Amino acid sequence: MSHPILSQYDLWFEEQQEAIQKDFFAFLRFASISTDPQHRSECFRTAEWLRRYLSEMGMEAVLWENPGLPVVFAEHHVGKDRPTVLIYHHYDVQPVDPLDLWQTPPFEPVVRDGKIYARGASDNKGQCFMTITALKSLLQLSKDLQVNIKLFIEGEEESGGEGTHFTIREKKKQLEADYLFAIDFDLPGKGVPALNMGFRGIAAFHVECTNAKVDLHSGSHGGIALNANRILAEMLAKLWDEDGKVAIPHFYDDVRQRKEEELRSMDLSFDEDAYRKEFGVGAFCFQKGVGLREANWLLPTVEINGMWGGYTGSGFKTVIPAKSFAKISCRLVPDQSPQKIEKGVREFFSSHTPYGADVKVDFHHGAEGYAVSFASPIAQLMKRSFEEVFKQDCRYTLCGGSVPIVKDLVSASGAEAVLFGFALATDNIHAPNEHFEWEHFHLGYKTLGRALLSLADMRT
Amino acid sequence: MSHPILSQYDLWFEEQQEAIQKDFFAFLRFASISTDPQHRSECFRTAEWLRRYLSEMGMEAVLWENPGLPVVFAEHHVGKDRPTVLIYHHYDVQPVDPLDLWQTPPFEPVVRDGKIYARGASDNKGQCFMTITALKSLLQLSKDLQVNIKLFIEGEEESGGEGTHFTIREKKKQLEADYLFAIDFDLPGKGVPALNMGFRGIAAFHVECTNAKVDLHSGSHGGIALNANRILAEMLAKLWDEDGKVAIPHFYDDVRQRKEEELRSMDLSFDEDAYRKEFGVGAFCFQKGVGLREANWLLPTVEINGMWGGYTGSGFKTVIPAKSFAKISCRLVPDQSPQKIEKGVREFFSSHTPYGADVKVDFHHGAEGYAVSFASPIAQLMKRSFEEVFKQDCRYTLCGGSVPIVKDLVSASGAEAVLFGFALATDNIHAPNEHFEWEHFHLGYKTLGRALLSLADMRT
Repeated sequence: MSHPILSQYDLWFEEQQEAIQKDFFAFLRFASISTDPQHRSECFRTAEWLRRYLSEMGMEAVLWENPGLPVVFAEHHVGKDRPTVLIYHHYDVQPVDPLDLWQTPPFEPVVRDGKIYARGASDNKGQCFMTITALKSLLQLSKDLQVNIKLFIEGEEESGGEGTHFTIREKKKQLEADYLFAIDFDLPGKGVPALNMGFRGIAAFHVECTNAKVDLHSGSHGGIALNANRILAEMLAKLWDEDGKVAIPHFYDDVRQRKEEELRSMDLSFDEDAYRKEFGVGAFCFQKGVGLREANWLLPTVEINGMWGGYTGSGFKTVIPAKSFAKISCRLVPDQSPQKIEKGVREFFSSHTPYGADVKVDFHHGAEGYAVSFASPIAQLMKRSFEEVFKQDCRYTLCGGSVPIVKDLVSASGAEAVLFGFALATDNIHAPNEHFEWEHFHLGYKTLGRALLSLADMRT
Repeated sequence: MSHPILSQYDLWFEEQQEAIQKDFFAFLRFASISTDPQHRSECFRTAEWLRRYLSEMGMEAVLWENPGLPVVFAEHHVGKDRPTVLIYHHYDVQPVDPLDLWQTPPFEPVVRDGKIYARGASDNKGQCFMTITALKSLLQLSKDLQVNIKLFIEGEEESGGEGTHFTIREKKKQLEADYLFAIDFDLPGKGVPALNMGFRGIAAFHVECTNAKVDLHSGSHGGIALNANRILAEMLAKLWDEDGKVAIPHFYDDVRQRKEEELRSMDLSFDEDAYRKEFGVGAFCFQKGVGLREANWLLPTVEINGMWGGYTGSGFKTVIPAKSFAKISCRLVPDQSPQKIEKGVREFFSSHTPYGADVKVDFHHGAEGYAVSFASPIAQLMKRSFEEVFKQDCRYTLCGGSVPIVKDLVSASGAEAVLFGFALATDNIHAPNEHFEWEHFHLGYKTLGRALLSLADMRT
């Protein structure tokens, strides 16, 4: 692209590098751990610091208060006839334990080997400040940049998000946008450009199996009373058939058939050896005719997240437990409905419950998955921005996890979302020694600038 | 039978009833809870009280000290040419919680509706004091009763028995006997005579399944890494085949074929409705061609006593757990060896472990089962004693549980054992409001007296 201020934009970063890092470090120093009630006021201070910083950049910045932690909302408005982009980030971070595994204190950012080390350096303060820096530069260089920008920075990404949900419901009108940039994702490797084309939904359940009033003596009752652990283990084992497919009724009914070209554009290869080394995983999921990456990205899965029953302490108690429990959850692909899956899960357990036993299924929570359209102009615009900066073809990836906030923001704003980010799987997010590549911060700054300038140039 | 002192013996009980009950209550008042370190000195006081009581009866009574709680040992010796009977009881009791469910305090014995209520009233202080009363009467009536008696009352039946084991190993010589009366069993109904013809052994195992270094995110890793809970549930489910038989290799190899007449002599019927009502059990074990009582008495079984893995707290954590655990135990019938079963269990798990996963089996404890010979003269003598007192045919029962102490005493003493008792399944042993039928105490007194007088009459 060739927007008139582009070369100034790139130069600005080189010149301001020190100041950027100074401000970034100030942001990182806030211990904005949203799951910890003792850090609540620190979270408020972080939000207020952001609001002020964005105000001073010339944006209209406010705190949207709610029953939880406030959302920082900042706007650059040029006119209803111009495209509007809503940008999502979060300012809260994960807890820091185990503290003794950190090489340097988590809230005292340092640079080592071209990486910024601090809690939140990557997830998501690093990506967030990269966006802020891009906006600061753009607005300094072009006060009337021809694109409406709405920056939405929440404080509850790591802690459930009740307050954020409240805000989204309440501020629906103000969130209206054409495009949503959800910048909380990874790149597949250092310097490798990629767009994330969607994530999976979820449906989670408690299962409780009862077959006696009290725990029974395994001598006096063994061979007579069916053991609740056995009932549950036998049912859970039936969740998969011989081909490794999930045996919940209608489980695959709504799985989207991906277009040939979409499949071709994604790298579905999987390096078992590297994975084994990194995670210590010995046995892999087998699914007839399906590769591991395909199973993780393109198909729904079910997991036994927890199971327990009987005596689990030290030593031994030879009981036949009265009850046994499991927590199971399904990851869903786009177009699958958690409610339809719930029906299947209930049907599965009721059809496999042995005569006389009592098996209760409770729906715990659910969220739909999301798919970015490969053909959408905004995805194509992002792809071009990535390729211009990274000087290579942009890849397409998917996310096996669930990001319900994106669905909520899409619903509220009416925007079409693109999902991307400049983090790496090796950034130690949620773990000690979290870090972010300074080079990726820079690449992100450049990519985002190009994308926003392209929107500013867009004829409407 | 017609021993010259028999009518005096029966009369003695009628006359002494009040004094017997007074002494019995004194015994019951000791809170001899062996599992609770805070009750340790109370256990010692109980043992000392017994030793003194038995001494005053004219027996040679001592405390056999050991690293745990002492064994009370009392002897009546008439000569090497006379038969010797070793009698087993225990003076320790179970804990009493939940205390608020007791109608009267557990260590303040009372009589209600012909039953003695107190912790230990049935298990085993009641049966123990019944034996003591029988001996007291016999020794008062016949100071040189022509049978050698060795009374062995341990204090660790409810708590593992390490100290008792020590004593048995150390006092092998003093324990030598022709017959062992192990009086810690039930009758099948009120006023229904029965001999217990054996019990099951046990082999218990910890199973630990590992398939990752750490718990993994079920979104990022679902479909790739095999879940340790799934691995374990699938293996545990395979412990039984379609016919409900245990699928551990060689599991049934050494199961004793019972003689037709033995099977006929046992009541193998089972009242499902009554059982369902009492224990709230909905689903029963299915085993092709095998009745429930048969499965419990005559066949080995396997149970999942405990299983756990992943997130088991409140709420939800969508992890793929790195590890999953189970405690399983097999009940064994006589002739089965825990070591041979251990081999089968190891083979079972190693043959079903998915490639790459790590499944560790640890042997926790084991004990052999025991079978009383139907043809043995001592079993026949006991049968006659029961029938004379109860005025009906003596039944044969079996015990699904394990009573390792009997095996140990048999090995040490070289005696042939008979197993019986006058408790009822409805005595609430190990539960609040434990009680013992005074009538059963009396019937036990009479039966035991006849058995001992028959031994005294025995030509050698």
